[in-house]
Amino acid sequence: MARQLKFGFVLHGVGAGWGDWRHPAAVTDASVNFGFYKEQAQLAEQGRFDFLFVADSVHITPRSSPHYLNRFEPLTILSALAGATSYIGLVATVTASYSEPFTVARQFASLDHISNGRAGWNVVTSWLDGSARNYSKPTHYEHDVRYALAKEHLSVVQGLWDSWEDDALVRDKETGVFFDPKKLHRLDHKGDFFSVEGPLNISRSRQGQPVIFQAGASEDGKQFAATQADAIFFHADTLEEAQAYYRDVKARVAAAGRNPDEVHLLPGIRPIVGRTAEEAERKYEESASLVPIENAIAALARPFNDHDFSAYPLDAPFPDLGDLGRNSQQSASDRIKQVSKDKGWTLREVALWHARPKRTFVGTAEQVADEIQRWFENGGADGFNFFEALPNTSLKDFVALVVPLLQARGIYRTQYGQGTLRDNLDLPVPVNRYVEVEETAEEEATACSF
Amino acid sequence: MARQLKFGFVLHGVGAGWGDWRHPAAVTDASVNFGFYKEQAQLAEQGRFDFLFVADSVHITPRSSPHYLNRFEPLTILSALAGATSYIGLVATVTASYSEPFTVARQFASLDHISNGRAGWNVVTSWLDGSARNYSKPTHYEHDVRYALAKEHLSVVQGLWDSWEDDALVRDKETGVFFDPKKLHRLDHKGDFFSVEGPLNISRSRQGQPVIFQAGASEDGKQFAATQADAIFFHADTLEEAQAYYRDVKARVAAAGRNPDEVHLLPGIRPIVGRTAEEAERKYEESASLVPIENAIAALARPFNDHDFSAYPLDAPFPDLGDLGRNSQQSASDRIKQVSKDKGWTLREVALWHARPKRTFVGTAEQVADEIQRWFENGGADGFNFFEALPNTSLKDFVALVVPLLQARGIYRTQYGQGTLRDNLDLPVPVNRYVEVEETAEEEATACSF
Repeated sequence: MARQLKFGFVLHGVGAGWGDWRHPAAVTDASVNFGFYKEQAQLAEQGRFDFLFVADSVHITPRSSPHYLNRFEPLTILSALAGATSYIGLVATVTASYSEPFTVARQFASLDHISNGRAGWNVVTSWLDGSARNYSKPTHYEHDVRYALAKEHLSVVQGLWDSWEDDALVRDKETGVFFDPKKLHRLDHKGDFFSVEGPLNISRSRQGQPVIFQAGASEDGKQFAATQADAIFFHADTLEEAQAYYRDVKARVAAAGRNPDEVHLLPGIRPIVGRTAEEAERKYEESASLVPIENAIAALARPFNDHDFSAYPLDAPFPDLGDLGRNSQQSASDRIKQVSKDKGWTLREVALWHARPKRTFVGTAEQVADEIQRWFENGGADGFNFFEALPNTSLKDFVALVVPLLQARGIYRTQYGQGTLRDNLDLPVPVNRYVEVEETAEEEATACSF
Repeated sequence: MARQLKFGFVLHGVGAGWGDWRHPAAVTDASVNFGFYKEQAQLAEQGRFDFLFVADSVHITPRSSPHYLNRFEPLTILSALAGATSYIGLVATVTASYSEPFTVARQFASLDHISNGRAGWNVVTSWLDGSARNYSKPTHYEHDVRYALAKEHLSVVQGLWDSWEDDALVRDKETGVFFDPKKLHRLDHKGDFFSVEGPLNISRSRQGQPVIFQAGASEDGKQFAATQADAIFFHADTLEEAQAYYRDVKARVAAAGRNPDEVHLLPGIRPIVGRTAEEAERKYEESASLVPIENAIAALARPFNDHDFSAYPLDAPFPDLGDLGRNSQQSASDRIKQVSKDKGWTLREVALWHARPKRTFVGTAEQVADEIQRWFENGGADGFNFFEALPNTSLKDFVALVVPLLQARGIYRTQYGQGTLRDNLDLPVPVNRYVEVEETAEEEATACSF
C-alpha cells in the first residue's frame, strides 16, 4: 500500500483560539463537558483519524485563555474516551518536569490496557515557570536541565514498561503457576534525577509500549525528539518552513541510527473548508474576528512566561524584550522576536499575526486536499495534527468534505486495521528489552530478574 | 425515609484472596481486563450500590498476591468506568505519601466532571516501605510523619478544589465575559511538606467536591479519619468488634465538632450466599480451599513490611517479631500479634485464620440479610464495603438473592436519586470556602482572589 497520511485530532474543548468560545457554534462549557468530548472523539474515529490528542499545562493565571483556565486532565478524559471508541489512538500530554516516573508509567500502561493498545504519551517539559510554584519547587528548571531530566524520566518510564515479559503471566489454574518470576524484572535505576527500583505493577499491552510523541522546536527539543519520539508535532506557516524542519529532523533521526520512516513529523494545521471559495473566505473572516486585539495581546503572554503586554503602546514597534522567553517557550518566543524584527511590525501587527489563524489551509475541499497532498508528497509532512479553526464546526466540515477526497486519492485509510495506535501509525511493536538481552547473554539478563 | 444501608463494591480483578484466580469461575486476566471491570461495575449499579471502590499499592515483589502484581491504576480505570455507568460512585485509592497535591486535585476533579459528580478519594499513606524506592526517596516516611503529611496534602487538595466559586464561570457570548476574576482564588499554601500556589485549572462539579474516604485503624489513622473523612472503611470479624470501633470513631467525629450522621462507617465483608444452608457451607469450603497453607504464609508478609515467613516452622508457636510491622501496616500487624498471643496459635493456625474468609456472613440469603440488618441496626455499621469471597460469583449471588430482601425490608434503596456520590451517601454539597468568608469579611476574602 502507498504511504498513508497520518492525522491527529486535537481535543480542545471550547477551542484553541482565544475567543473561540464566543463563536455561535461553540459549546461554552465544552472543556469540562464529557458529552462534547465523546461526540468529537467518535466523529474523529468516523473520519479515520490515527489519534486523539489532549494538550496540557499545569499553571494558570486570570490572563490564561478560556480553555486553559478550566479543563479536563488528559489521562482521565482519555481513559473515559477509551470506552467510547474502538480504534483511534489516545495521546495524553504529561509534563516530565512535575511528575513521578512510576506514576506516569502506571497510568499510561493502565490506559494502554483499558484501550487495548491505543495509548500515547506526549512528553513535555513545561515552559511556564509558575508551574514550579504549584509543585513545591523553589524555581522552574532551566531549559537544558528540563531536557536532561525529561530524557532520564522517559528512560525510566520505558524501562518500567518492560518489567513484565510478554509471556511472563502464565495463569495456569491446573498447576497453580500465575507467573514466571524469571520473566519479571526490576529496573534498579539510579540516575541524576530519579532512583526507581521497580518492577512496575502492570504488564505490557498488545502494542508493547505506548507510543512516544514530542514537540521539539528548540535545539534541545529537536534533538530530544529525534532521538526519543515516534511522532513529532511541529509548527510551520508555509511548506518551505515545514520542509526545512522536516529535512533537519529526519537527518537527526537517521544520525541517531533510527529509521526515518518510523518517526512521523506532523505539523499542526487549522483548515477552514467551504463549499465554495467564497464560503471559505467568509469562514476565515469569521474565525479572525474571534480574536480581537485585546485577546491577541493576552495570547502573547504565554510564550513569554506570562509577560503582560497590555501596558505597551499598540502601534509602536514590537518592544525589545531582551532574553525574556528564552527559558520559557524558547522556540516560539524566538520566532516571534525574529518575525517582528524581519517585518518591522508593530505590537498590534505581531499580536494579530500570532493569534489569528493563518490562510495556509483555507479554501474549498479540493483546495484544502490539494494543499495537504502537496505538503505530504513534497517532504513537508508525514501527516498533520488537526486543530479546529472554528469550534464545533471544522472537524465536521473536514470529515464530511475533505476526508473522502483524500481517501479517493489513495493517501488516507478507509478502514482501520488492528486498532492499536502502533498499527495505525505503521510502527513495529518494540521487543521487550529483557528478551533481547537473554538471547545473547543469559547470565546478565537473569541478574536483575527475580 | 428510614435510614438506608450504604454499600461499596470492591473491584478486585482476579480477587482479593491469594488463590482466588484458580477458582473455576475466575477470569485469570481480570485485573487488566476492561470488559470484566465494566460488567462488574454495571452489575453493582444494577444492585444499587453506592459506589465502586478500587484499592491500590505502589510496590510489588515476586511474593505479592496475583491481583497486586498486575492491575489497573485506580484513576484511569474509574475514569473509563464513568462512561459505562450513570449513578454509582467512583472511589479511587491514591497515596498521599507519593503524589503531588496539584496533580491529585486535578485528576479527581476531572473524574468528578467526567462522571457528573461521582468521584471519591480514598486517602492512604502507603505502608510498604519499598514504595519509597519507586519514588526516588531514600527511606519510607515514619508512621506519624505519614499522617501529618497526609493531613497537609488533603488540606491542599481540598483548598485547590475550591479555586473556582460555583458562579465564577459566566460564559456570556454577548458580553464576552468568560469568567469573573474575583471568583477565582489562589491558595498560596506554604506548609511543612508542600508549597502550592494555585489556582487549580478545573472548576467544581455539581457535587461540590469529591467525597473523602479513609481506612484509619491505628490511633493516628482513626483520628485522621474521624476529623477528615466522609466515609471510613474498617475491619471487624464480629459485631462486638464492629460496635467497639463504631462507638470509638463516632465519638471522635462528634468531638471534632462534626455531625456523626454525616460520617459513614463501613466494615469490609465477604458474604457467601447459598440457596440453602448446605450450599452456603459448600461454597465456604470451596472458598477456604482456595487458600492453601503456602499462600496463607505468603499473605502474612504484607502487613509485616514484606517479611518472609516461609523459613519459620509451621507448627511451632507464631514467631516473636519484636517491632516488625509497627511502621508498616500498624493496626493489622498489631492485631495478628495479639490474636496469636491470646489464642496461643501456631504459625499455621495464624496464617490460615488471617488469609481464609471468616464465617460471619455465610448462609442463606435470609441469614445473610439478617446479619447485615443486625450490624446496621445495632451500632456496628452504617453499611458495608463488599469484597467477593468467590471471584466472579459472589456479587451475582448477592445482587440476585440478598439485595431484594434488603429492599423489601425498607433499609436499602430501590432507585437512585440525583446520581451524585454525595447524594447516594446523603451528604450535603460543601459550600465553597471563599463564599463563606466573603459573607462575613469581604476584605479578607478578596485578598487572595484576582
